[in-house]
Amino acid sequence: MKRIGMLTSGGDCQALNAAMRGVVKGLCESCEQLEIYGFLDGYKGLIYGNYRLLTGADFSGILTKGGTILGSSRQPFKQMRVPDENGLDKVEAMKHTYHKLNLDCLVILGGNGTQKTANLLREEGLNVVHLPKTIDNDIYGTDVTFGFQSAINIATEAIDCIHTTAASHNRIFIVEVMGHKVGWLTLYAGVASGADIILLPEIPYDIDSVLGAIEKRSKAGKGFTILAVAEGAISKEDAKLSKKEYKEKLKNYKFPSVSYELADMIEKKSGAEVRVVVPGHTQRGGSPCPYDRVLCSRLGAAAAQAIMDEDYGNMIAMVNGKTKRVPLGDVAGKLKSVDPECQMIKEAKSMGISFGD
Amino acid sequence: MKRIGMLTSGGDCQALNAAMRGVVKGLCESCEQLEIYGFLDGYKGLIYGNYRLLTGADFSGILTKGGTILGSSRQPFKQMRVPDENGLDKVEAMKHTYHKLNLDCLVILGGNGTQKTANLLREEGLNVVHLPKTIDNDIYGTDVTFGFQSAINIATEAIDCIHTTAASHNRIFIVEVMGHKVGWLTLYAGVASGADIILLPEIPYDIDSVLGAIEKRSKAGKGFTILAVAEGAISKEDAKLSKKEYKEKLKNYKFPSVSYELADMIEKKSGAEVRVVVPGHTQRGGSPCPYDRVLCSRLGAAAAQAIMDEDYGNMIAMVNGKTKRVPLGDVAGKLKSVDPECQMIKEAKSMGISFGD
Amino acid sequence: MKRIGMLTSGGDCQALNAAMRGVVKGLCESCEQLEIYGFLDGYKGLIYGNYRLLTGADFSGILTKGGTILGSSRQPFKQMRVPDENGLDKVEAMKHTYHKLNLDCLVILGGNGTQKTANLLREEGLNVVHLPKTIDNDIYGTDVTFGFQSAINIATEAIDCIHTTAASHNRIFIVEVMGHKVGWLTLYAGVASGADIILLPEIPYDIDSVLGAIEKRSKAGKGFTILAVAEGAISKEDAKLSKKEYKEKLKNYKFPSVSYELADMIEKKSGAEVRVVVPGHTQRGGSPCPYDRVLCSRLGAAAAQAIMDEDYGNMIAMVNGKTKRVPLGDVAGKLKSVDPECQMIKEAKSMGISFGD
Amino acid sequence: MKRIGMLTSGGDCQALNAAMRGVVKGLCESCEQLEIYGFLDGYKGLIYGNYRLLTGADFSGILTKGGTILGSSRQPFKQMRVPDENGLDKVEAMKHTYHKLNLDCLVILGGNGTQKTANLLREEGLNVVHLPKTIDNDIYGTDVTFGFQSAINIATEAIDCIHTTAASHNRIFIVEVMGHKVGWLTLYAGVASGADIILLPEIPYDIDSVLGAIEKRSKAGKGFTILAVAEGAISKEDAKLSKKEYKEKLKNYKFPSVSYELADMIEKKSGAEVRVVVPGHTQRGGSPCPYDRVLCSRLGAAAAQAIMDEDYGNMIAMVNGKTKRVPLGDVAGKLKSVDPECQMIKEAKSMGISFGD
Repeated sequence: MKRIGMLTSGGDCQALNAAMRGVVKGLCESCEQLEIYGFLDGYKGLIYGNYRLLTGADFSGILTKGGTILGSSRQPFKQMRVPDENGLDKVEAMKHTYHKLNLDCLVILGGNGTQKTANLLREEGLNVVHLPKTIDNDIYGTDVTFGFQSAINIATEAIDCIHTTAASHNRIFIVEVMGHKVGWLTLYAGVASGADIILLPEIPYDIDSVLGAIEKRSKAGKGFTILAVAEGAISKEDAKLSKKEYKEKLKNYKFPSVSYELADMIEKKSGAEVRVVVPGHTQRGGSPCPYDRVLCSRLGAAAAQAIMDEDYGNMIAMVNGKTKRVPLGDVAGKLKSVDPECQMIKEAKSMGISFGD
Repeated sequence: MKRIGMLTSGGDCQALNAAMRGVVKGLCESCEQLEIYGFLDGYKGLIYGNYRLLTGADFSGILTKGGTILGSSRQPFKQMRVPDENGLDKVEAMKHTYHKLNLDCLVILGGNGTQKTANLLREEGLNVVHLPKTIDNDIYGTDVTFGFQSAINIATEAIDCIHTTAASHNRIFIVEVMGHKVGWLTLYAGVASGADIILLPEIPYDIDSVLGAIEKRSKAGKGFTILAVAEGAISKEDAKLSKKEYKEKLKNYKFPSVSYELADMIEKKSGAEVRVVVPGHTQRGGSPCPYDRVLCSRLGAAAAQAIMDEDYGNMIAMVNGKTKRVPLGDVAGKLKSVDPECQMIKEAKSMGISFGD
Repeated sequence: MKRIGMLTSGGDCQALNAAMRGVVKGLCESCEQLEIYGFLDGYKGLIYGNYRLLTGADFSGILTKGGTILGSSRQPFKQMRVPDENGLDKVEAMKHTYHKLNLDCLVILGGNGTQKTANLLREEGLNVVHLPKTIDNDIYGTDVTFGFQSAINIATEAIDCIHTTAASHNRIFIVEVMGHKVGWLTLYAGVASGADIILLPEIPYDIDSVLGAIEKRSKAGKGFTILAVAEGAISKEDAKLSKKEYKEKLKNYKFPSVSYELADMIEKKSGAEVRVVVPGHTQRGGSPCPYDRVLCSRLGAAAAQAIMDEDYGNMIAMVNGKTKRVPLGDVAGKLKSVDPECQMIKEAKSMGISFGD
Repeated sequence: MKRIGMLTSGGDCQALNAAMRGVVKGLCESCEQLEIYGFLDGYKGLIYGNYRLLTGADFSGILTKGGTILGSSRQPFKQMRVPDENGLDKVEAMKHTYHKLNLDCLVILGGNGTQKTANLLREEGLNVVHLPKTIDNDIYGTDVTFGFQSAINIATEAIDCIHTTAASHNRIFIVEVMGHKVGWLTLYAGVASGADIILLPEIPYDIDSVLGAIEKRSKAGKGFTILAVAEGAISKEDAKLSKKEYKEKLKNYKFPSVSYELADMIEKKSGAEVRVVVPGHTQRGGSPCPYDRVLCSRLGAAAAQAIMDEDYGNMIAMVNGKTKRVPLGDVAGKLKSVDPECQMIKEAKSMGISFGD
């Protein structure tokens, strides 16, 4: 007999349901008796004791369904130690719910912030298992996170669409790709779609270098240029600013996002017409791709196994093609960003892709 | 023996190549000898005598290829009578190219503006055949234009993606859909994707009515609302402004587009968080969908037949499932917009979809 | 207050759920009180009184979901008048269920056979509304059935995939397309995918003509040929057989389906290597395409309106872009097949597509 | 100055063009002068001196294009040492072409058989670089081959489609998945699509175990069962046969493929209705997925680097996320099959998936 709590926290992504299905399928095969408590809207459900008792039927047919059947919300780690508006101690409240329901363990699906809170709960004595969810692929200790490949597919398809229209009109297009503070999604979608220029947060760009890359294409008779630009991309000038100076800059910022500023710069400096496309939240929606469904089924099954082994306090990671238990204490709070000197960047550069540096 | 000129003008869309392939396949079967002159970058190629002699191989394998192998450009009708920067009379230049190449006919693929110029050339004595291309579906005299269904598919897929994320986070999302000054694309993508509120240029919206529809959903326990908003959507207040007043308003407009203004209004009035997604030019890119490929093959074959019959001066339209020759003089300059009282709007309203009126 | 029964019968297709959602959304807006009885597995549920009382939640989120939430089964019309294995009179049983539940009306989604039984129930005094479902598009009295466009998309995608491999290997490929006794699906998927030869039940093929078309391509330097062959395609010889002779032939038939026989003939006569692909039931699965979702939403809303008007005994059809009530008595038992002399066939032939005649 | 020969051999797959583009983009950036000789239809082109001199334009826009612009053919390794019908020594002929064109190196894209011949050419003193292409993923020495993920996507989509129709009709479906003699593709597509039973060549199945798995689902109230069956799946009885006995069996084999035999067995033993779907060659067609495009771009760039380093005789592999040069002599002739005891099989089993063993 196992009593398991489950929650999905932070920005949603495509394969959350597939991952939960994996966990439950794994547990169902091993446990004679099983109770699954699904907490609603992330940690909020755990804090305020909002949950649904879930049955096998809840997990039937959700392998291909985007979003999360439990709902999600952003509960910043920083705020976890701060009492809520009614003075409630959130950490104590979560522990209270956990113990009241007499749970064996909490299965927590989420990204970096979620992981930090999961680690906090571990430190507070709760049994937790964490599954690495995010389209950003920025979780330390796993080769890949779920949602990442599905988001690559959507961003790539968007750039593919832009390709035919850019080529027909000889235009410069900027496609802004999600990814928070790291460039994984932009790098992969950029290479997959044959983008000409890829700008990542990890490689601050020089506007003249960007203009040079456009001009080089133009001279080679290629009338259009496609830039895949991470939402967190930053210019060399801005990268030099102190945190305070940067905040000051943002105060008077007149652009909806970095791509619009870049478009403005390119138009002013080159006279060319630039169009901006922002696929935005579409990148975290829709059905998970088969890659993510395999990944989530495996991570879910491995999480179930960890629970059966009563081996708690880990993130279930994918490392070199194998699922692996990684202690939360070793990874929580660390960010996995793109190494500007990594093999893939070098390969991309060797193919003539400019990173604006 | 036929000598045919061909050009694609205006914003590109998905099935231009498929349509040209249809024309050429049709002509190849009927003509013993055939010369196809492909003018580059729309009317510009005709004006300046920029063309490529095309062979069957150019049209092989392009049925599924987005964009246009001839390139395109926007050449506003209003500017056609205005000499270019070197004093060149554009209309005379086009006639000159036509006669110099001893063409039997010009096959012109494009939207409303393109059609007007095609009609002008007809009035000037040239043989023209027009094929109705646009994702906006706003061409008078044909039930449907090519590109429309492909664009519906892309916009719908974007809203589908937003659906899972909106439902997971209980958010309000605005998806801005293309369509120029008409609401066809937004109406069809909105109904196809199950949008809750659909705002069209043809039905000016009342902000309080929009807020009411959101609140109604909220009261019915539905935490999220999706708005499909046409890029040309307009509020009742703005619809009342004179042209001059409206221009004045736009001067100080601080939003990138109408959706951002609407989001701002909803946030201010309701306190809810609103996210905006702008799929933008992705809606005119990528491979044509099977529907458009059938449509273009049929229109193309019918255009070839019209050429063999030496029946010129028509748009090849699709009316009640049949291809039909419609005199350009009857349709050029007219706009097909959504009738707010049409059956489909009534059906949509009867299903609970709000149009904000 | 309305009490509505609903069932889906016959082979399933992609937009059944979308259509039911349309009906229910339409009714919910108009009825103060509404009870929906969903009969399980088609007429079987009505016969044996197997149903679930459905709520709005059942219809939430199913717009994009393939299959049918009610289940389906094939209940041949011919058997309806024959008592079941326990001697039960099926028609009386259906009437009994209907009256026992005090239904206002039955909403019946299905194809030709389903429609005949719906008409029978109408003749027996029940209030029925029929929605034309089938990937075969063979229902008389409506321009289009739902499922048709979604199936075209899947069949077309399959042929698209075959295209790249056929071209790389210079092979002859036969793709067998569904469609029961009519050629609609094959015709549309064949034209959409650029098939070279299209064989339909309505145009019996001559094997020498097929071989001639292959050879013509070969002489023109095109190394591969793709045939889109309807599952109901028939040779001229077989078309001449009496029903008895044909049955005799089938007794010793050694092929899984017509495509394998055709491949065998082509290989024997030409020496070329032929590969057969049978996408089969994939053509009726998966999510409905946006076209079908719009179609079903409109048909559903129109069905709801007919119910509110208490105007029963009709199929809700789509005719020239408008929804329309068509009396079941006028259409039941009639088959809509492809006219070999229709405009689209002529256009396809004019593009060089062979129909093997 | 580099003179490079290039060829694609064996069954085609989705990302061949993407890989060649990667090589050429990489070389273009590094070489001042570059000549690319594209041999037509695999080794045939090298044997008979059939080639085209390729320019950058040939590689433009082919990143997303399925098939191979060079054509392919199967040239069994066993036949390489056998003279052709005119007595020509094929190996000498290939060497002759290589030396006559004064090539620096041959870039060879292909699967296991192709690799063996590439290794033979290496042993004969030619400079070769091999890129691991196959949807089967059975090449030893690389974690993944290109085409594999794209084929997974297509097979998964087919099973997804079957899912909705199987669920609606409570049927048993067999989807036959490609993969030659190994089960990689079936395993991944089966897990990705939520198949209930997965049969692989590496795990001979017991028909009673398969029937037991179907019955177990039936008892749990699940009316349908989906089997993902590898084209090379084999029963325990057949696995025990000697090669000679097995050949004898195949002589009188009345089924088009293994799935039909299995369907026949299940129908006879259980009385249930079973449908078979064979997506066949669609699995190697269509556009490469973004995963494969990234993979091929990286492998291609790494191949270009190896050529610049004049480091020949290797396969360019992907190992633990990094491109790597693996000596052909170490891997040629070895097959990578699924280990029945591997982690992923265990995880799949722990989720309740039956492998029929």
